[in-house]
Amino acid sequence: MQIVCLDLEGVLVPEIWIEFAERTGIPELRRTTRDEPNYDTLMKYRLKILAERKLGLPDIQDVITSMGPMAGARDFLDDLRESYQVVILSDTFQEFAKPLMKQLGWPTLLCHRLEADANGVLVNYHLRMPDQKREAVKRFKELNLTVVAAGDSYNDTAMLGEAHGGILFHPPENVIREFPQFPVTRSYAELRREIDKAFARVA
Amino acid sequence: MQIVCLDLEGVLVPEIWIEFAERTGIPELRRTTRDEPNYDTLMKYRLKILAERKLGLPDIQDVITSMGPMAGARDFLDDLRESYQVVILSDTFQEFAKPLMKQLGWPTLLCHRLEADANGVLVNYHLRMPDQKREAVKRFKELNLTVVAAGDSYNDTAMLGEAHGGILFHPPENVIREFPQFPVTRSYAELRREIDKAFARVA
Repeated sequence: MQIVCLDLEGVLVPEIWIEFAERTGIPELRRTTRDEPNYDTLMKYRLKILAERKLGLPDIQDVITSMGPMAGARDFLDDLRESYQVVILSDTFQEFAKPLMKQLGWPTLLCHRLEADANGVLVNYHLRMPDQKREAVKRFKELNLTVVAAGDSYNDTAMLGEAHGGILFHPPENVIREFPQFPVTRSYAELRREIDKAFARVA
Repeated sequence: MQIVCLDLEGVLVPEIWIEFAERTGIPELRRTTRDEPNYDTLMKYRLKILAERKLGLPDIQDVITSMGPMAGARDFLDDLRESYQVVILSDTFQEFAKPLMKQLGWPTLLCHRLEADANGVLVNYHLRMPDQKREAVKRFKELNLTVVAAGDSYNDTAMLGEAHGGILFHPPENVIREFPQFPVTRSYAELRREIDKAFARVA
């Protein structure tokens, strides 16, 4: 049995924090781990800014709903689900992803979660486990599934390496250089072709 | 993060072999493991009958398409997917399940597979792994997911026991007697209430 593990942000939906910063006009939320390498410091900074701006979870979800998936993502995913099992492996939070999952037809998603207080103010975040994308691929392999994984960035390369086949989608130049073993795709049609090829190679 | 593992036949769709026997008027296909305890003997017998009747995979899938899911199954599942991640764990074959998965909005499914020749005649079957339902629940727990599982029959009880919460749906009397630890539900509304209660208990 064959399963495709897909990264979410940059593959099916926009980078959520960056797009959120644009849409709300809060440039401080553009900060990423490139500016603040300590993820915990970065997340606490982000949650502090949201609280200061009185942006609770329902407000945030409204903005995320308006983003929508990337053009063509839903059709790509619908077609893919006719041929393979699909699970989304993402380092986002389920509360952020939910409006986008709805627009994508509720594919199965494994990610992290946020904690809100009674007023909807985000007070903390909880990472489900370290290296969760690679761990999920490992467990799927233990369940005798053939796994092809696709993602766009550095934090996907461990799952790409763990899978029977790994594919890059719209990756930055440094990732292409550092991981020449993964085919590079730049459209959903190309990605689909490489997924089919990867499964054919393993079979 | 919370995930619901659902059995397929008897929970979301009819018992496929029995319903198939009805619709095609082939009583020999009503045989189950109660009549022939050796599963391999039973499956080879079934495949032989299908081949003799010249029923290939496309014909079989047409019949299965016409069965459809059980009344209310799609609504139950759609609602459930808004609140939890959902994976179907079934001992059926992906080629049989596919027309029903389409009608259920392509939930993720882990099951077994059939082998057809170039003419669509089924020539063999492949079980993905022994005890696959329980193994899947174990792996999901290792991924730090909270798991509630529901099923209707004896072969679901191992996954129900492995999950953080296990629920029976329309079970036969002998299963109720032998497994008094699992709540018994007989409608989708009841099942949904027990799923919510089980997650609330674990949290």
